[in-house]
Amino acid sequence: MPAKASKKKKTGAVKRKASSKAVKHVYAFGKKTDGNSKMKTLLGGKGANLAEMAAIGLPVPPGFTITTEVCTHFSQTKGKYPAGLDAQVKAAVKQVEKEQGKLFGSKTDPLLFSVRSGARESMPGMMDTILNLGLNDKTVVALAKKSGNERFAWDCYRRFIQMYGDVVMGVQPRNDTEHEPFDVVMDKLKKELKIENDADLSAKNLQELVKRYKALIKQRTKKSFPQDAYDQLWGAVSAVFGSWNNERAVIYRQKYNIPSEWGTAVNVQAMVFGNMGDDCATGVAFTRDPANGEKVFYGEYLINAQGEDVVAGVRTPKPIAQLADEMPHAHKELEVVRKKLEKHFRDMQDFEFTVESNTLYMLQTRNGKRTGLAAVRIAVEMNKERLMTEKVALSKIPAESIDSLLVPIFDPKAEAASKAIAAGLPAGPGAASGHIVFSASTAEREVKAGRKVILCRVETSPEDLKGMLASEGILTSRGGVSSHAALVARQLGKVCICGASTVKIDYEKKTLIAGKTLLKEGDFISINGTSGEIFAGAIDTTDSEVKRVLEGNLKPSKSYTYRLFSTVMGWADKYRKMKVRTNADTPEMAVSAIAFGAEGIGLCRTEHMFFEGDRIDYMRQMILAGDEKERRSALKKLLPFQRKDFSGLFKAMKGLPVTIRLLDPPLHEFLPHDDTTRHQLATKLGVSRETINERMKALHEENPMLGHRGCRLGVSYPEITEMQARAIFEAAASVMKLKKPIKVSPEIMIPLVGFQAELKDQVEIVHRVAKEVMAAKKVKIAYTVGTMIEIPRAAITADEIAEVAEFFSFGTNDLTQTTLGLSRDDMGGFFDDYRNKEIFNQNPFASLDQDGVGKLVEMAAEKGRSVKKNLKLGICGEHGGDPASIKFFNSVGLNYVSCSPPRVPVARLAAAQAAL
Amino acid sequence: MPAKASKKKKTGAVKRKASSKAVKHVYAFGKKTDGNSKMKTLLGGKGANLAEMAAIGLPVPPGFTITTEVCTHFSQTKGKYPAGLDAQVKAAVKQVEKEQGKLFGSKTDPLLFSVRSGARESMPGMMDTILNLGLNDKTVVALAKKSGNERFAWDCYRRFIQMYGDVVMGVQPRNDTEHEPFDVVMDKLKKELKIENDADLSAKNLQELVKRYKALIKQRTKKSFPQDAYDQLWGAVSAVFGSWNNERAVIYRQKYNIPSEWGTAVNVQAMVFGNMGDDCATGVAFTRDPANGEKVFYGEYLINAQGEDVVAGVRTPKPIAQLADEMPHAHKELEVVRKKLEKHFRDMQDFEFTVESNTLYMLQTRNGKRTGLAAVRIAVEMNKERLMTEKVALSKIPAESIDSLLVPIFDPKAEAASKAIAAGLPAGPGAASGHIVFSASTAEREVKAGRKVILCRVETSPEDLKGMLASEGILTSRGGVSSHAALVARQLGKVCICGASTVKIDYEKKTLIAGKTLLKEGDFISINGTSGEIFAGAIDTTDSEVKRVLEGNLKPSKSYTYRLFSTVMGWADKYRKMKVRTNADTPEMAVSAIAFGAEGIGLCRTEHMFFEGDRIDYMRQMILAGDEKERRSALKKLLPFQRKDFSGLFKAMKGLPVTIRLLDPPLHEFLPHDDTTRHQLATKLGVSRETINERMKALHEENPMLGHRGCRLGVSYPEITEMQARAIFEAAASVMKLKKPIKVSPEIMIPLVGFQAELKDQVEIVHRVAKEVMAAKKVKIAYTVGTMIEIPRAAITADEIAEVAEFFSFGTNDLTQTTLGLSRDDMGGFFDDYRNKEIFNQNPFASLDQDGVGKLVEMAAEKGRSVKKNLKLGICGEHGGDPASIKFFNSVGLNYVSCSPPRVPVARLAAAQAAL
Repeated sequence: MPAKASKKKKTGAVKRKASSKAVKHVYAFGKKTDGNSKMKTLLGGKGANLAEMAAIGLPVPPGFTITTEVCTHFSQTKGKYPAGLDAQVKAAVKQVEKEQGKLFGSKTDPLLFSVRSGARESMPGMMDTILNLGLNDKTVVALAKKSGNERFAWDCYRRFIQMYGDVVMGVQPRNDTEHEPFDVVMDKLKKELKIENDADLSAKNLQELVKRYKALIKQRTKKSFPQDAYDQLWGAVSAVFGSWNNERAVIYRQKYNIPSEWGTAVNVQAMVFGNMGDDCATGVAFTRDPANGEKVFYGEYLINAQGEDVVAGVRTPKPIAQLADEMPHAHKELEVVRKKLEKHFRDMQDFEFTVESNTLYMLQTRNGKRTGLAAVRIAVEMNKERLMTEKVALSKIPAESIDSLLVPIFDPKAEAASKAIAAGLPAGPGAASGHIVFSASTAEREVKAGRKVILCRVETSPEDLKGMLASEGILTSRGGVSSHAALVARQLGKVCICGASTVKIDYEKKTLIAGKTLLKEGDFISINGTSGEIFAGAIDTTDSEVKRVLEGNLKPSKSYTYRLFSTVMGWADKYRKMKVRTNADTPEMAVSAIAFGAEGIGLCRTEHMFFEGDRIDYMRQMILAGDEKERRSALKKLLPFQRKDFSGLFKAMKGLPVTIRLLDPPLHEFLPHDDTTRHQLATKLGVSRETINERMKALHEENPMLGHRGCRLGVSYPEITEMQARAIFEAAASVMKLKKPIKVSPEIMIPLVGFQAELKDQVEIVHRVAKEVMAAKKVKIAYTVGTMIEIPRAAITADEIAEVAEFFSFGTNDLTQTTLGLSRDDMGGFFDDYRNKEIFNQNPFASLDQDGVGKLVEMAAEKGRSVKKNLKLGICGEHGGDPASIKFFNSVGLNYVSCSPPRVPVARLAAAQAAL
Repeated sequence: MPAKASKKKKTGAVKRKASSKAVKHVYAFGKKTDGNSKMKTLLGGKGANLAEMAAIGLPVPPGFTITTEVCTHFSQTKGKYPAGLDAQVKAAVKQVEKEQGKLFGSKTDPLLFSVRSGARESMPGMMDTILNLGLNDKTVVALAKKSGNERFAWDCYRRFIQMYGDVVMGVQPRNDTEHEPFDVVMDKLKKELKIENDADLSAKNLQELVKRYKALIKQRTKKSFPQDAYDQLWGAVSAVFGSWNNERAVIYRQKYNIPSEWGTAVNVQAMVFGNMGDDCATGVAFTRDPANGEKVFYGEYLINAQGEDVVAGVRTPKPIAQLADEMPHAHKELEVVRKKLEKHFRDMQDFEFTVESNTLYMLQTRNGKRTGLAAVRIAVEMNKERLMTEKVALSKIPAESIDSLLVPIFDPKAEAASKAIAAGLPAGPGAASGHIVFSASTAEREVKAGRKVILCRVETSPEDLKGMLASEGILTSRGGVSSHAALVARQLGKVCICGASTVKIDYEKKTLIAGKTLLKEGDFISINGTSGEIFAGAIDTTDSEVKRVLEGNLKPSKSYTYRLFSTVMGWADKYRKMKVRTNADTPEMAVSAIAFGAEGIGLCRTEHMFFEGDRIDYMRQMILAGDEKERRSALKKLLPFQRKDFSGLFKAMKGLPVTIRLLDPPLHEFLPHDDTTRHQLATKLGVSRETINERMKALHEENPMLGHRGCRLGVSYPEITEMQARAIFEAAASVMKLKKPIKVSPEIMIPLVGFQAELKDQVEIVHRVAKEVMAAKKVKIAYTVGTMIEIPRAAITADEIAEVAEFFSFGTNDLTQTTLGLSRDDMGGFFDDYRNKEIFNQNPFASLDQDGVGKLVEMAAEKGRSVKKNLKLGICGEHGGDPASIKFFNSVGLNYVSCSPPRVPVARLAAAQAAL
């Protein structure tokens, strides 16, 4: 979790600003092109790629980009612009006027602009866009004349007023229940005119609408709609820059760790019109299927529409294939563009186009967002097609993606037995069941209350982001694969079906009707985001294909996803330097982890073994013992259980290293918390209730996290360490003496060490017991004894500790708690505040705080190896499964990471990416 | 609390060992002298000073020292000796034989030895000693013949067998109730012979006693008493080396932070006899009074006795002045020796001597242990006498000593109203009241149960150490100022009266009788260790003379201790580099601290202000508020109280800097814990009990130490920070506008910062409020805003934090808790284990863990100053009053330490010593 300050340093965004006044703030594209695709930091993704497309000869309407630096200036000065910007913008407008042969604000042949945001990383739908800018009461007339299409001109104007009124002048619903005010005005007019479709509104009707829109703005804002083209332009530019800090953009940045310092660029581009008639169209396309990665031309378009109509999902667009029939020429051109784009950008592209009077214009291209599954498939296949090298392909797969090949799917039998009530576009693969909710806020509330929900909407909008994040899956009845719902689902890895047009959702009645089935809010629904099928009720899930192959329940040849998985894992294993182990406490977990590619156990928590059956009684007897003798007697009873646990693990691991952590939690964690169990315990142990209560009271701790636990237990009660060591070595001996002997490599790990002397104390016990057991069993066991590095003092004195330890394993969970002085259990009270104020860019328990905790890890690694050059270093905190953290651990030179069994493939991939 | 490993590095004890076999293990002293007083590390204090005395011509019986390195070898190899030692010892014995003209083990003129321990630092009574070694059934006859005193020879032999049987062969009481077995045998014989005094036993009787002693040894050990002189020597040497690790020595080392690696040397010295007749004597003397520091020849002796008799307190010795009458020649010689010693060693000396047939022999000298009061007086007076420079004198006063001039004394009126029931030797100054206990174990038990006790013993022995440590004061009825009780009291700074011979203590009846007063175990008793008077019942205590002078209640000229104090403080202020501030929350505390020399407030904890009167209700209202509005309303009520608190502090501090820490503890600490108060609160606040209970439940934390506290509160509830900042600035403004304006320098301190961003968040609020208040009040307040460094991340990212902070104050309490992962509240469960196993050499909350926490302090200081060269650095944890920690803080370059008011003088002195 790099803190704000450090990210800043990495961006270099601030550096340029210090230089002279002659800073270039505006970059042209078109016939004259200043930028290129490498300038994303300065021009944003959209601006840089518009420049690149213009440069390689694709048909891009001319325009210019105002840099991200201006955004930063704008944010820091609370709305001011750097000196000289105005002149540079004017010059750029002039250049466009020259290229287009039109004049901005002209009453005869007006040049119109679109104004769009464009950050360094795409943030679809997060910021504002304004189209048709430059129209006013005069220019609209000119446009009508020039285009010969009066209705078109007035439609453009009313759209412009609506967007500008909303985005720049803030005419928006005033609460959750109020409808979009411009829509209300339009609906009212349509009702008066008894017109149903917008398309049936005549030019006259639209003139009336414009009048009413302007009145609405005046009423709401006490200001007139601006008529001056440059006033409009600056209003729009300011609104876009301002939208960088709107709530949904901030939330989005938090989710994707985009620093607020990056800022957005603003792209001002000559308008082309997809809505000038039936020889016009607008669309969005992907060079491959972004949902499953298949190599098909994928996209959708609307005839006679503006770009925003496609994304907004107001009209359900047509699949791109139909364009071949409707506009064969444009379709052919698009196919050429598709190939050219992939060949040039060497990645799947997501692009926007407009056809104006049968002429194709490219409005944007970018690397397409894709689901995890698609990421894997595209990388593997593009490598096969020699569009990507192995290394590039590997780097193109977000490590988390591999998870989507492993997530549960609906149990095939259960799914087969269920009848789909409807189907939609499969926009986010996977299986999800949950209670139906119809609003994002309900979704959030229900999830906080512990329920799983499926968010069902006619369509989604950026305001729904939080609710979508909370839901198991998303279902929409309207909108295509490039609708907001699909876009977000793709990025969040959410199960999603969109455009299920036979589903009728009624927000007021809170019902969802599909054919004869009526479902209410709260009812269960299940969606298969891979097939697009929707089921009433809950359906059981089962293992993914990959998992079934790994566990021998499906032939590899039967599963294409398995082949994708194994190709990627093959690459990963070829390039990674770090080993990947797993955190497993039982033979079952161990077996599953080995199937996922684990190369050993990095953390076996022995305390989990004490809860089952009789053991907990003996454990409690041990804890409540009055003296060492009683304690030893209870430990004697625990010994055979522990021995059995360990021999089970050793058998399952077949000679792979097994790191066993000795008892760690404070003893009171094992005691019953309710009176009944406590009284039963008293009876079982043959002591009075008072004795039990008193001893429990004595064991109470104010801050158990910092209390009598870890090696402190072993220091106070050496007999516990003895028993555990004995169980380990006796188990090892027994497994080595089986008919088919199994090699055993136990690595015994002493937890919570802060002082060399306490480690020494424990290590001596382990060695003594090892000697005893090896002598008694006449066997030589290869074992090592090491320590957790999980409190700051251990890291600070790692050189001293390394004199005694044979390995270090970083316990980054506790190390984070102590280094940040932050209890994971108690963070709930202020975590949201810290996220909102951007003090935490991430949850430090999910992704390592590299500037703080990371420094200690680095220090400990260096100090440890200064004493023992080849000291084995690993990490067994939950960060072991987090790609960003893995990258860091690789840079520090750890030998392995250890994570939960299902995270092993992610870790393997992340380790490889880190090594590249 | 330097860990074991690091102390090792400092000693250099191990280095030499690696070299060749020709290591010198044995150092002679006498006519041939190999060592000198600078070789204490190798020869121990006693051995080095015996060599030094021999070298400057004082009459030292010849002998040799076996080095501490041999002890270390002996401990590490569990009882083995380095190669070549045997030959070196033999050669050394030969040299002594030559000088004395006697032969070791000779049947005609046997040379006898004493064998004594001697560590680098004196550990009186902690280890074993054996006298008269070399006697056996043959040599005893030769000794009798040669000395012409058969009784003397047999008395030496029986003493030797007793010591050797006890120390080397382990014939000791088998439990607490059993008497010393050799005493039992002797008592039986005396009964049989109807003899009362040992002195009345004839040579024949003693021969019988020797027979019975040998039989006792045979019976107990199944071994015969060894007859070979060299066997005896090696047995004794091994026993002394072995005694380095006996329980009482280990406890002593823990108390005085003596690393176990130091080891002890063994001194083997030709016997001289103080018990050969009435022209013989033995004694212990100090060149000045060790109890109060007065320049008088001070000591005691016994005619016709061996040295151990004096220290053991078996016979009450006579004051040294009487020797002038009894042995005028020896006394004259001693006066010469006394002056020579002080002039040569330039410090008060504690020495042992023996007069054998009117000839004086010096057996030992060392810097005398002294009480705190004596330390101060001796340093001041020796400086006046030009025996010490100012700097040396300063360095000779343990900083803690100054405390003994400040500890409470009995209230003079109450003491005058009480009648002393007895008096003894004032051996440890000060006043103590407590319940009478008669055994060390009872003392320990009672103190654990929370009672204050006075340990009353006939005499004390090393076994009583733990009990003495636990007691408020110690009273003995037997033994002089060099008795065990007096020695230990001197070192522990315990109030002590010894040799109160009119007091009759009966262990069996558990009574103490003084004249007509009978006191029982559990009764109150009061002892004045300065005057030696004993009182029945408890007496109130009052301020020390120094404190009364400082507070204007006593004229400086009336108090010699005040003049001592002010001389030492004058020196301290001249040499120290660090400022000394105080931790004070109220004007009263501030005034008291200023009297003690505090130069500002380093920590004002604002939370303490919220508990009084109505405030706690408003505080609770604030905490339980449902929203910001309710919270602000409660804060508004708290504002005037806080403002008043701060203006009080500002007035008291008269322009000295005041560091105010904003609210720190988790809010639930302010809530009531019992149901009744909770219900009253519900009524007061007009909410339901359920609401209260629910909100309290929501505030519960698993690990409050790591929870929602410190600046995290201000981040979540900026209105709290606002209110506190407003109170500070409004108070400052009001004080600056008084008729007699007072300068104000508030330093506002944000607690628990770990991230630059959170500090920034809080600093911005403070600056905003400051601006508002200054504008409203039309005044300019000079203030700074800084931060606590109290969690590891703050230290690690101190460079980032320093960009925002104007000062750092190390909160070493919390920094210790987080760096060590160690809750101070929960350490009780294992602290003893950690002390016993020497994992902790000290309580890390009392003395800074320099190798762990200290490294972070150093890192933060460096990183902070790398960004702001003159960043003000202070420390306000409890370590600010600990001399060892202060030394460290000085070395790191802190600007000030802050400690509790009564610790200010100690801190001033320690800061000066650190600077020297």
